[in-house]
Amino acid sequence: MRPSGRSLDQMRDVTIETNVTKHAEGSCMIKVGDTHVLCTATLEERVPPFVKGSGLGWVTAEYGMLPRSTTSRMRREATAGKQGGRTVEIQRLIGRSLRAGVDRVALGERQITIDCDVIQADGGTRCAAITGGWVALKLAVNKLMKTGAVITDPLIDPVAAVSCGIYAGQSVLDLDYPEDSEAGVDGNFIMTGSKKLIEVQMSAEGQVFSRAQMNELMDLAEKGVSELVALQKAATSA
Amino acid sequence: MRPSGRSLDQMRDVTIETNVTKHAEGSCMIKVGDTHVLCTATLEERVPPFVKGSGLGWVTAEYGMLPRSTTSRMRREATAGKQGGRTVEIQRLIGRSLRAGVDRVALGERQITIDCDVIQADGGTRCAAITGGWVALKLAVNKLMKTGAVITDPLIDPVAAVSCGIYAGQSVLDLDYPEDSEAGVDGNFIMTGSKKLIEVQMSAEGQVFSRAQMNELMDLAEKGVSELVALQKAATSA
Amino acid sequence: MRPSGRSLDQMRDVTIETNVTKHAEGSCMIKVGDTHVLCTATLEERVPPFVKGSGLGWVTAEYGMLPRSTTSRMRREATAGKQGGRTVEIQRLIGRSLRAGVDRVALGERQITIDCDVIQADGGTRCAAITGGWVALKLAVNKLMKTGAVITDPLIDPVAAVSCGIYAGQSVLDLDYPEDSEAGVDGNFIMTGSKKLIEVQMSAEGQVFSRAQMNELMDLAEKGVSELVALQKAATSA
Amino acid sequence: MRPSGRSLDQMRDVTIETNVTKHAEGSCMIKVGDTHVLCTATLEERVPPFVKGSGLGWVTAEYGMLPRSTTSRMRREATAGKQGGRTVEIQRLIGRSLRAGVDRVALGERQITIDCDVIQADGGTRCAAITGGWVALKLAVNKLMKTGAVITDPLIDPVAAVSCGIYAGQSVLDLDYPEDSEAGVDGNFIMTGSKKLIEVQMSAEGQVFSRAQMNELMDLAEKGVSELVALQKAATSA
Amino acid sequence: MRPSGRSLDQMRDVTIETNVTKHAEGSCMIKVGDTHVLCTATLEERVPPFVKGSGLGWVTAEYGMLPRSTTSRMRREATAGKQGGRTVEIQRLIGRSLRAGVDRVALGERQITIDCDVIQADGGTRCAAITGGWVALKLAVNKLMKTGAVITDPLIDPVAAVSCGIYAGQSVLDLDYPEDSEAGVDGNFIMTGSKKLIEVQMSAEGQVFSRAQMNELMDLAEKGVSELVALQKAATSA
Amino acid sequence: MRPSGRSLDQMRDVTIETNVTKHAEGSCMIKVGDTHVLCTATLEERVPPFVKGSGLGWVTAEYGMLPRSTTSRMRREATAGKQGGRTVEIQRLIGRSLRAGVDRVALGERQITIDCDVIQADGGTRCAAITGGWVALKLAVNKLMKTGAVITDPLIDPVAAVSCGIYAGQSVLDLDYPEDSEAGVDGNFIMTGSKKLIEVQMSAEGQVFSRAQMNELMDLAEKGVSELVALQKAATSA
Repeated sequence: MRPSGRSLDQMRDVTIETNVTKHAEGSCMIKVGDTHVLCTATLEERVPPFVKGSGLGWVTAEYGMLPRSTTSRMRREATAGKQGGRTVEIQRLIGRSLRAGVDRVALGERQITIDCDVIQADGGTRCAAITGGWVALKLAVNKLMKTGAVITDPLIDPVAAVSCGIYAGQSVLDLDYPEDSEAGVDGNFIMTGSKKLIEVQMSAEGQVFSRAQMNELMDLAEKGVSELVALQKAATSA
Repeated sequence: MRPSGRSLDQMRDVTIETNVTKHAEGSCMIKVGDTHVLCTATLEERVPPFVKGSGLGWVTAEYGMLPRSTTSRMRREATAGKQGGRTVEIQRLIGRSLRAGVDRVALGERQITIDCDVIQADGGTRCAAITGGWVALKLAVNKLMKTGAVITDPLIDPVAAVSCGIYAGQSVLDLDYPEDSEAGVDGNFIMTGSKKLIEVQMSAEGQVFSRAQMNELMDLAEKGVSELVALQKAATSA
Repeated sequence: MRPSGRSLDQMRDVTIETNVTKHAEGSCMIKVGDTHVLCTATLEERVPPFVKGSGLGWVTAEYGMLPRSTTSRMRREATAGKQGGRTVEIQRLIGRSLRAGVDRVALGERQITIDCDVIQADGGTRCAAITGGWVALKLAVNKLMKTGAVITDPLIDPVAAVSCGIYAGQSVLDLDYPEDSEAGVDGNFIMTGSKKLIEVQMSAEGQVFSRAQMNELMDLAEKGVSELVALQKAATSA
Repeated sequence: MRPSGRSLDQMRDVTIETNVTKHAEGSCMIKVGDTHVLCTATLEERVPPFVKGSGLGWVTAEYGMLPRSTTSRMRREATAGKQGGRTVEIQRLIGRSLRAGVDRVALGERQITIDCDVIQADGGTRCAAITGGWVALKLAVNKLMKTGAVITDPLIDPVAAVSCGIYAGQSVLDLDYPEDSEAGVDGNFIMTGSKKLIEVQMSAEGQVFSRAQMNELMDLAEKGVSELVALQKAATSA
Repeated sequence: MRPSGRSLDQMRDVTIETNVTKHAEGSCMIKVGDTHVLCTATLEERVPPFVKGSGLGWVTAEYGMLPRSTTSRMRREATAGKQGGRTVEIQRLIGRSLRAGVDRVALGERQITIDCDVIQADGGTRCAAITGGWVALKLAVNKLMKTGAVITDPLIDPVAAVSCGIYAGQSVLDLDYPEDSEAGVDGNFIMTGSKKLIEVQMSAEGQVFSRAQMNELMDLAEKGVSELVALQKAATSA
Repeated sequence: MRPSGRSLDQMRDVTIETNVTKHAEGSCMIKVGDTHVLCTATLEERVPPFVKGSGLGWVTAEYGMLPRSTTSRMRREATAGKQGGRTVEIQRLIGRSLRAGVDRVALGERQITIDCDVIQADGGTRCAAITGGWVALKLAVNKLMKTGAVITDPLIDPVAAVSCGIYAGQSVLDLDYPEDSEAGVDGNFIMTGSKKLIEVQMSAEGQVFSRAQMNELMDLAEKGVSELVALQKAATSA
């Protein structure tokens, strides 16, 4: 029934390749089906003005799509002269979500910037960015701990994200682009490894929904995030 | 226990004054406690390019805050040269939410723009904007129906919004600014008069949360939206 | 003969309601007929770089129109990405005019920003903004004097403004929008309570004018400003 | 008493050299003392959207200062990313003033753009721009009449401008930069060859002024404009 | 003597992997040592206004660097609000160079946009972009020919580029980043498969140079381009 | 054969008038045929952040065209909101080229900004800007040496530039606009008085070229630059 032939609660194949660029303190290429996102972590020994002097660390994120990551070419945002509303929303979400898994005291007064650049898009780029962004963050923090710059691990609980939605009247896990563009309800679920909720966003896209449906989507999301967290652990423990 | 002395499931006093400006096709000033938002509806017999020729109507929204609507003065966005990320997020949310209550076929190929301008802010401005925006929309549509330009009422189910959150460890309804700035979890719930969900957004603000807590917030939101919908009906039936 | 039925030297009804927002140090809603402008004064204990260290105070102003303050909706300047030429001209005029009534030594090195936001427009918004802006300024200064932060009153002579023009061949006081859009000559007159001139701007709008006509307009303006200054005093002495 | 040694009612030396660039339909370099402005007229057989189909012509103006036209270097506006408030004000004034001397029916549906670029500044650049702009406009219109594209001369009355002000307590004609930066009152007077008023702008710059002083400035301005109009005629009749 | 241990006339290892993204009409990842550039070709059946109706095709290019493609993180240009001067220069160069190898009549009135995004930078990104850009272009044109949309091959002579410079007093081929940042003279040479010149740019970077040195660099460049063209052919003939 | 009737290796008439504006530390109007560029040098006792504390001087340049310097009017870049790609390329080239003739140690930690504004364009504006820019720079440095602020002359070798190209199949010196717009190959050659190369840029404009042709253009350029350097010396030795 799903265009991809997956079962209702089945995620796409996910791979996470780490250390894919030589300059970044941490990096990975996460592939969730045909959605490919390059995530890099940049460590800087300075923080934004609103944190300065607080002793706390800061984690922030930026998001971009390559112009031809999509079916038809998108205008390059640098040419348009600004980031679009969707981009701004997504990168704020990524930053906020990742920070929820970070002990900013333990991190100390330094900043880690996660850049998430979509190389190829097929739905669910923001979720892939969060899941891969956590891996890049983890790799950068591992370096800080190896050098002794940071003593206590500031990454208290892994953060991952998955989309779920109502497609053709059914609740399904991990929407790909053909599903996403037809879904009546679309949700993003960001959770920790211990199943705590960080951010839940559900939107009617042409069809309102009930609390019962909301609970179905939550159940699927818990399943998906568990699988993603396992993959994150495998990728970063090597 | 709440700074305002309200009980956990008690909303602030809400008033909706209609027809407050002479030029707009529909308008109201909604006051949710000390949060005051002026909502106007502008009707135009043209639609954006992506709707043209479809026979469908369009409802969109813009949001702004007067520079001194807040405790300390904010920079005017027109001076800054662009709308900030928060503004863009909010106005996209308002437009999306209101459209969920509209039968765009019945509306016909015309556009209604809802401007929501915050005159005074004390928490919950986006929810007040949605609730008041629906009233302005309803008043504009009433005129269309009176003149016969529209035959079937395109407003199928009223839309209202309320924020809930976890404050001092307790789930509370309708956060005001002192609560909002301290809340560990903050959610916006946008629903219809028939208790269908349109948009649910819950964010950890320093503290992750459980599904049980999420359900508590949902219960409070349902109570709040019921009260708001009653006030919308009273305001627009006169 | 005038669309409103007023006599040639008759102003519209003017009301000034003070302390209309809870955050601003001074505020009023001025209504000149159907032109409604919200004026707020923000006090900050810092000055712009070009004043720093001089011991002098600074008074500045910003101006905006809500998108649907006008007959047809205007594009929001924050969306357009900049303030238009008219807006910039007007806010520079407001700031310059108000400063002419201020003893900047007595004010001391602090800044007061007057925000003038047009809620509903029917002609003469810049003059209403100046007249109401002075009231907001006065209220903020009163607070400074009450706390003893300022000893000598820095507001030496009240500032008010009125437009006059040549409509249908006749010199008339206080143009409303129907007159303004037809007037052959349009002038703004900014004066003090003691009839000193601060700024005089007269423009041919399709018809040049003589010195005799200029003097007629000046006479009308003096009458109008006297009436406005009386209303300012009543509003701020309470 | 004046820094330049001029008498109170004496203008600086003024020269107008015509046809100084080979591409423009009309051009001149006007020198008012050390203020040098290059004015060019560009004729286009198209009009802006708001004039289209009206049968009326349009005259507009743009103004700029070369970065080192001033004592210390100014930032180039193209680098700053926008025209400053002062620039916008001035170019709107130039366009509005020139249009007051034009019969737009006689001009026919075409546009003439006057570019006024300050090569060297020493006070009074906007007045020099208007006076020189009229000359460039006249030369362009002369070509239109020579080819028969325009039959009736659309330039009905020459337009010129001069600044006057109160310097060291005295009313003086044609402020240069040392006077302008010290003047208590500063005015720009735009008139026609037949002494009709087009635009009068007087501003208190630190000192308010009386109607008697205003009349003194008007008298000086009439004298100055007469002299400028004579020079314009000489320059364009050759 | 070279930091990498290469001989003076030795290029870095170059690989070109084709068809790396599923949406683009042509694509490759070119790796010139540690410089990795993703090149995609987008085919559109429309042309820019200045070509419209001419019957000619258009090839254009855009260039970008991922924020952490470099040793220290660069600001994202979409955030900065514009493309920097270097970016604009490079993308104009890429487009101009590729067009020199294209018969625009044979291509027909359609546009191919080459996006070159630097995933990892280690010197010579613009040359890699041109060389890889040609491959993406070739693959897209191949598709056009396979479908019969284009009959005569519009790609008349392959285009490739290499940098040469004077490093530590010696002329060397294919500067990597450590060499580039120290080089006294830096040149980019864009040529065709038949050794014709398309663009030659040589810049003194701290040391002027003689015609004899210029000729040495030209000799090296010819060698490098020959090798690159062979790789392009291998990559696109598969 | 050339539109102007010049022989293949003949430059246009060149004049350099110095000290043409009263504010700049150095200035000239260079006329290369009908191409007229005003060059001014601004001396500031401060340097950009990336030079601060190095003890080295800095020379930079900005370039602009007056809107009607060209055959048809160009949009003013200040109105467009940014400098175009061509402008940015040219001003970077001017700055880079002039710096190649400067001993930045001898100059000392101060900045000289060269503004090159095209008053009238007829091809070759960037070359005229470099040649004239050197003169303005020289005049400003002369003042520094006269006052003793600088002891050793930091201008080690004069810098001048000329364009050459292939027009109607022939190599010609100093392209004017009619030639430039038709040329198959277009090159800019920036050299020192001692015939050292600073920057060489050759571009195929519709026709690729051979090394033999490249050498012909180099020969012409050497002739042209020699003549320009002689004129620079005459202009600055007076």
